[in-house]
Amino acid sequence: MAQKTALIVYAHQSPASFNAAARDVAVQALTKKGYKVLVSDLYAMKFKASATAEDIKGDLQNPEHFVYNNEMMVAWKEGRLSDDVAEEQHKVEQADLIIFQYPLYWFTIPAIMKGWIDRVLTQGFAFSMQNMYDNGIFKNKRAMLSFTTGGMESMYKDDSLHGDINILLWPLQNGVLRFCGFQVLAPQIFWSPAYTPPEGRAAMLDGWRERLGGVFEEKPLSFAPSEYFDLSFQAGFCLRPEVKDKLASEPYGITTAHHLGKPLPPNNQTKPKQN
Amino acid sequence: MAQKTALIVYAHQSPASFNAAARDVAVQALTKKGYKVLVSDLYAMKFKASATAEDIKGDLQNPEHFVYNNEMMVAWKEGRLSDDVAEEQHKVEQADLIIFQYPLYWFTIPAIMKGWIDRVLTQGFAFSMQNMYDNGIFKNKRAMLSFTTGGMESMYKDDSLHGDINILLWPLQNGVLRFCGFQVLAPQIFWSPAYTPPEGRAAMLDGWRERLGGVFEEKPLSFAPSEYFDLSFQAGFCLRPEVKDKLASEPYGITTAHHLGKPLPPNNQTKPKQN
Repeated sequence: MAQKTALIVYAHQSPASFNAAARDVAVQALTKKGYKVLVSDLYAMKFKASATAEDIKGDLQNPEHFVYNNEMMVAWKEGRLSDDVAEEQHKVEQADLIIFQYPLYWFTIPAIMKGWIDRVLTQGFAFSMQNMYDNGIFKNKRAMLSFTTGGMESMYKDDSLHGDINILLWPLQNGVLRFCGFQVLAPQIFWSPAYTPPEGRAAMLDGWRERLGGVFEEKPLSFAPSEYFDLSFQAGFCLRPEVKDKLASEPYGITTAHHLGKPLPPNNQTKPKQN
Repeated sequence: MAQKTALIVYAHQSPASFNAAARDVAVQALTKKGYKVLVSDLYAMKFKASATAEDIKGDLQNPEHFVYNNEMMVAWKEGRLSDDVAEEQHKVEQADLIIFQYPLYWFTIPAIMKGWIDRVLTQGFAFSMQNMYDNGIFKNKRAMLSFTTGGMESMYKDDSLHGDINILLWPLQNGVLRFCGFQVLAPQIFWSPAYTPPEGRAAMLDGWRERLGGVFEEKPLSFAPSEYFDLSFQAGFCLRPEVKDKLASEPYGITTAHHLGKPLPPNNQTKPKQN
């Protein structure tokens, strides 16, 4: 069997941070298992975040009206992407697993990591109109969000102040990762390390190390399979009537729960499975 | 009554885009009403997106371990933020209304606009542990997301391929805007202008112009009031038991729907109210 490769896309400014420690644990644990590990340290690389015409070499298709996605798609086909984007795409191609390691900024990824997503996941390379979700280009790869929070876990519940963490992660886990076909692993959430004593932080990292030992055996999160939907303009890409009827008869009817891979159980516990 | 001021935070690379047209309509319509209009054209300004130590003048509090939020909070207090951040904050201070105008990139804002949020909405300036949500610092200001999509409207339904647009917008509308106290207006969504014929695009802009004429009279979206929650570490910032019982007796129980400001009606229609 070919050696597996992991890519860690990492976004923290400080080598003394808990995020840096989590990255180091991942590098060590995955290397120990015999995997090749690549790291994109975005701040250290001064990774450009904004989607601009500089990302394209040579002439634009339509210099009168610059449409980033369209220009990037053609530039990718013709090998005219900027070197920094092409290098990241080369890492993604090699990777069997991508871990995004970051501190939660405004309930999502920091801008520099959003820039990596906006610039690297080019149409044609990462998705196409024919290849998305279940049938996505990266369906043989795994991906995981791994992040630290400022707030405590109880603030991120369905019935709590900030709302359900699963809802906050939905645009990233479904809209970015699963959209490109990735098998999405449960998020690794480090709750409030800044307010946790040293032994608690060490225990968090021990749990992370242990989890990573079996990361290629983990069962991915489940999402509604694409075959549930009628993927035609006529049907508006909606749930097929027979699936809709089936789901509607379940306790909580048709809500985003079907997308999150499960009808909400009666007690509304929606904590992601952690292996 | 003092003259009202609007700030348009705008993120598209091309002056020939539909987003540029939407911005221009907003400038014209708001100016016509007698409001002062400020525009932050992020790509034209080459607005820096990444949160780095360059955003702080003078010495860092802890150069051994750079924590962006903490350093920015102190720099704000002491007037040591970089000029570009300080200028944007000055615009926010003046604004009675902020409109974010952008194309949807990966189901959320482009990285350059996330950079504006990460860098400009400094703790102390935009929120504090005492001042968030209902009691937020900007509770006398209004804010609105205004964006274009690639996909058609029917793809963004609760029972459709990408899931409910309200869920996709939740981290921004609740986690950023309402968190800072803004009165959040219903999003202005321009569905698929790139695939809409010219007369349809013109009609979209006419609707936008008309809406803006009454933008200060519009009823904001409703969210669960902070008083529903027991804001203490002991109670974990969860819904108060009496509110929980009340909500649980409603048709769909306690889901994120209570956060979105309404229990889901039986037919699961969750389209935002458009005035």
